[in-house]
Amino acid sequence: MTVTGIIAEFNPFHYGHQYLLSQAKGLKIVAMSGNFVQRGEPALVDKWVRAQMALENGADLVVELPFLVSVQSADYFAQGAVDILMRLGIDTLAFGTEQLFDYQKLSRLYSEQAEHMTAYLATLPDHLSYPQKTQSMWEAFAGLSATGDRPNHLLALSYVKASAGKKLQLQPIKRLGAGFHSEAKDQCLSSATAIRKHIADRAFVEKSSPNAALILRAPQVTWEHYFPLLKYHILTAPDLTQFFQVNDELASRISAAIRSVATVDELVEAVATKHYTKARVRRVLTYILVKAVEAPLPEGIHVLGFSKKGQAHLKTIKASVPLISRIGAKPWDQLTQRADTVYQLGHMDMPEQTWGRVPIRPGAMN
Amino acid sequence: MTVTGIIAEFNPFHYGHQYLLSQAKGLKIVAMSGNFVQRGEPALVDKWVRAQMALENGADLVVELPFLVSVQSADYFAQGAVDILMRLGIDTLAFGTEQLFDYQKLSRLYSEQAEHMTAYLATLPDHLSYPQKTQSMWEAFAGLSATGDRPNHLLALSYVKASAGKKLQLQPIKRLGAGFHSEAKDQCLSSATAIRKHIADRAFVEKSSPNAALILRAPQVTWEHYFPLLKYHILTAPDLTQFFQVNDELASRISAAIRSVATVDELVEAVATKHYTKARVRRVLTYILVKAVEAPLPEGIHVLGFSKKGQAHLKTIKASVPLISRIGAKPWDQLTQRADTVYQLGHMDMPEQTWGRVPIRPGAMN
Repeated sequence: MTVTGIIAEFNPFHYGHQYLLSQAKGLKIVAMSGNFVQRGEPALVDKWVRAQMALENGADLVVELPFLVSVQSADYFAQGAVDILMRLGIDTLAFGTEQLFDYQKLSRLYSEQAEHMTAYLATLPDHLSYPQKTQSMWEAFAGLSATGDRPNHLLALSYVKASAGKKLQLQPIKRLGAGFHSEAKDQCLSSATAIRKHIADRAFVEKSSPNAALILRAPQVTWEHYFPLLKYHILTAPDLTQFFQVNDELASRISAAIRSVATVDELVEAVATKHYTKARVRRVLTYILVKAVEAPLPEGIHVLGFSKKGQAHLKTIKASVPLISRIGAKPWDQLTQRADTVYQLGHMDMPEQTWGRVPIRPGAMN
Repeated sequence: MTVTGIIAEFNPFHYGHQYLLSQAKGLKIVAMSGNFVQRGEPALVDKWVRAQMALENGADLVVELPFLVSVQSADYFAQGAVDILMRLGIDTLAFGTEQLFDYQKLSRLYSEQAEHMTAYLATLPDHLSYPQKTQSMWEAFAGLSATGDRPNHLLALSYVKASAGKKLQLQPIKRLGAGFHSEAKDQCLSSATAIRKHIADRAFVEKSSPNAALILRAPQVTWEHYFPLLKYHILTAPDLTQFFQVNDELASRISAAIRSVATVDELVEAVATKHYTKARVRRVLTYILVKAVEAPLPEGIHVLGFSKKGQAHLKTIKASVPLISRIGAKPWDQLTQRADTVYQLGHMDMPEQTWGRVPIRPGAMN
């Protein structure tokens, strides 16, 4: 049987995600961000709720990306997630994209020319951001034009690099565009960004997600819920450069800005430059918030939930892969667990994220 | 001219404080806690407002006790404050007390027998708290009974020790008790504790303080305003014992309690024991909140305000004492300044506490 891996955030889950899952084949394994996501912010609703949404829409197994995989630039995010999915036995990687390039061919190209391509990156002027350099690289080596707003395609190129040289079938799935109309007239295709932005509009959320009830009844958080904690920490930390990826320049820009801003958005605006993208600044602020320091990734894979099919698959691999289904006194990953502790502080009603939590099993008594 | 020193917190200023100032002689110099007070909590209103209240009621000079003098057990508090006042040229120390003992005689006794008395303390059983041991010492050496609730008398005994061997006249001033009735029928004698507790009762505050308007219009904070920050810090600090006076036992009691309490009061209740008094626990939590580590006291004396008489006095001593009237790029005291930064986070409307602040001069344009 085909075993398909999907790398996702489901922040929150919507009809586009449902479509992606429906197009994936065989057993469907999702490697999902935890409580902080790739763009450097807290997830709207917690990882357990998001895992449940995935399981209710066709996923067979949902595992958690450790904090230092989730909250990373695209290449590290993709690499870390693909590594975990490979250990779980996938043979296919499905992903959404705006345009159906021959990603398999690009992956072969990268497996043959990675060294040249990386060397090329180093020749590009320093004022370019890393994403800009990467686009220029693909243009030079594969003739891919860098125009247009295609965030999923760009992430797909990171999957291409992460899968290079691996026995992995790439299955791009064309995203349904704004022109898409579901057969059910009360459904519409909204982006996760739009849902987060209009979370207070109940009718909109209900039209946009098959799991609106779950989303709406869960405690919802944004970066702003954590601003007082972030501000306190920045103002009192003896040395911000002790935290992951905070260099002297970022530390001094952040310390200079913190006294005059009233929101995280304002702080990001004040700190970002051409060189330091807003996403990077958000990630750096997330590292500071959770006091992240460089640490090895955990050996174990944390299971957030599974279907009956997923459970059967877990049985076939558990002898060779350390699976964590209940975190005990021995930590799974200290950094992710600290991030979860901080995440909980964002909302009075946020349930405990670690202790006593066991995988979601839809249809079973948990 | 007599130069009288007064050690105070004015948290907040009330008619009892006004009476104390009226009984003091000559030039009146107040050494006042900053934004965190001796019992280990944030002051109800900030130090600038409290200095202004003192100046409007007869004080000629108000200087700030550094954080590590303010937030200390009685003996260190008294010692640090007396040292600062001596450097400012006082010859008399005035203080309120419930009962007029011959404190001058006690001070002579202590100057002669300090060594024996301290040695006696060490013979007392460990389950006694330090305040209990001290009371037992005074009973043994001076026949002072330890009964009754006399917090001011107990603090006076710390002044006695701090002044031993110094050329300092002690002027105890009997506190006006609950039986006191002011001539003005719309005034009543309330404790600072009662005013803090009933701060929402405008009429009560107006009856209890000559500076009710100042108090009521200032941003007011309590420990609970800082609980989210304290909780975040406790939950994410790698090692609480790095902070001042946090030993292994306190660190483990605090870490164990923090997940199950909803307020600072509950946390104090959960952590305190016979040995660790609530006041001590509150101070320790304050150290953790402001990330205090042991550090030398500042050389300079920070001036919060002065009258014309006070200004004239400052001119006579400024050649020999480093006075700080405006904190610049060079810190006065990093710990106090960090404490002020944290204090500001407790209330949206709290004004800047350090940068650009200059001494209050009643009647002058500031």
